Amino acid sequence: MDGYAFEDLQVGQTASMGKTITDADILLFAAVSLDTNPVHMDAEAAAASVFKERVAHGMLSAGLISAVMGTRLPGNGTVYLEQTLRFRRPVRIGDTVTATVEVTSLDPAKRQATLRTVCKARGKVVIDGEAVVLPRSRGADVLPSSRA
Amino acid sequence: MDGYAFEDLQVGQTASMGKTITDADILLFAAVSLDTNPVHMDAEAAAASVFKERVAHGMLSAGLISAVMGTRLPGNGTVYLEQTLRFRRPVRIGDTVTATVEVTSLDPAKRQATLRTVCKARGKVVIDGEAVVLPRSRGADVLPSSRA
Amino acid sequence: MDGYAFEDLQVGQTASMGKTITDADILLFAAVSLDTNPVHMDAEAAAASVFKERVAHGMLSAGLISAVMGTRLPGNGTVYLEQTLRFRRPVRIGDTVTATVEVTSLDPAKRQATLRTVCKARGKVVIDGEAVVLPRSRGADVLPSSRA
Amino acid sequence: MDGYAFEDLQVGQTASMGKTITDADILLFAAVSLDTNPVHMDAEAAAASVFKERVAHGMLSAGLISAVMGTRLPGNGTVYLEQTLRFRRPVRIGDTVTATVEVTSLDPAKRQATLRTVCKARGKVVIDGEAVVLPRSRGADVLPSSRA
Repeated sequence: MDGYAFEDLQVGQTASMGKTITDADILLFAAVSLDTNPVHMDAEAAAASVFKERVAHGMLSAGLISAVMGTRLPGNGTVYLEQTLRFRRPVRIGDTVTATVEVTSLDPAKRQATLRTVCKARGKVVIDGEAVVLPRSRGADVLPSSRA
Repeated sequence: MDGYAFEDLQVGQTASMGKTITDADILLFAAVSLDTNPVHMDAEAAAASVFKERVAHGMLSAGLISAVMGTRLPGNGTVYLEQTLRFRRPVRIGDTVTATVEVTSLDPAKRQATLRTVCKARGKVVIDGEAVVLPRSRGADVLPSSRA
Repeated sequence: MDGYAFEDLQVGQTASMGKTITDADILLFAAVSLDTNPVHMDAEAAAASVFKERVAHGMLSAGLISAVMGTRLPGNGTVYLEQTLRFRRPVRIGDTVTATVEVTSLDPAKRQATLRTVCKARGKVVIDGEAVVLPRSRGADVLPSSRA
Repeated sequence: MDGYAFEDLQVGQTASMGKTITDADILLFAAVSLDTNPVHMDAEAAAASVFKERVAHGMLSAGLISAVMGTRLPGNGTVYLEQTLRFRRPVRIGDTVTATVEVTSLDPAKRQATLRTVCKARGKVVIDGEAVVLPRSRGADVLPSSRA
């Protein structure tokens, strides 16, 4: 099975994924989120804004954090419990965002992992924050079905 | 101009937006986020998971919070600074998610607003958390261009 | 009825369709296929690869072959049996891919047609291969319902 | 680095990915491929066809083969050279397609791997075939840049 069970995680493990943000991403994210804020969709309004040009939705980059945790570390079977996000800088069209997660603590009593989550673009932090997740356990019978 | 300047906000103001989550939302969110976790994309794998069926990405519902703040309250010109998210329950295909935000405090020194942010589906909380935003000011010349 | 019945096909007949490949195509193909290979999605990773820049999924161009056969030659009612694909060169964002199919043999006993299938971009072959299809017959009552 | 270099592959290795095929997949695949064949898009025409109902594009399932090879086995850095596809049975809306690839031979002289590629739905083979790929090598300097 892909990904890591709680028992196989160690503090300090990291994983990353990158994605180039295009017009199509912004259009489709607006569609699924209903976030049609002019700063994302209207180049003329965006030019008059504090950002000076169209920028990507912050939550679009946050989605990449979810991707890394759901598909790489811890990966398959992970249940997402909490996320904090600090939006540091805007992401512009054409930027490549790289999300990196790092295991920072493991709580054996609750079987939860805490990860530092950082998104960068053009070498600078665009989002930082922290996630708490419930990785799968080695034995399927200990899956916390009360969370379903 | 749509939306509220910092000077026009009051503690207790609320706004909401709802959206029905379909297969198409999950497919497009997977594309923009790269989150192809089988629990979202593969009905057979999802049936064997703690969720028992395919569920929506948590960040997809979180995008609706961003939509309310960016287009309703405070609305146009708002800069997103921070968001905390606690994922309480999964969202299933066909569920209608309603995101509600409520102004809980206003900091005149920093010109920042704090909002409680809740997403519900089928009458139950699926996400709760808190946002910190920088609403636009009444005069464009006081826009905090240092945040660009 | 559009398209050709087996009885109306002749060796040497050709048909073509072209399509310009954009960021949106790559994003949507990634969603439907789950193929989030960084060489398609991450400009920085792609720059470090053998391709030097983001390239389209090979199967995206192959889909255009299916389009020509399903809608033009033989067209309506055709059942796709086999396809071979040799990926000769990458397709880059902004390239226009043209798929051309040519009837190369007809098997009256099996009522099957073989077609040479070529995709070109910027004047060069990007995919070549061969397809075997079952065109519809002139009378609906001879439709091979055992293939359903 | 994710995925397998040629030196790390062994005959018999397998990997799989599954995906549930929805209306949205068929719509988006039609958009990117231009394959607007009525058997995929028009339930009334499809009801009168040999398939009796709308079916998914064969190349849509083939895309899942590409996904497994590009992201799992061999994974990151793999160059796709050849694919044969035999379309055995149609895929219907709501079916979950699982693509499995298995390394069947390794050619050290050409540094190429051959894989058996099978897609199943509802326990039956819908596509079988074979792929030839060029996995990345352990040393980046031996990447075959002439393929770019």
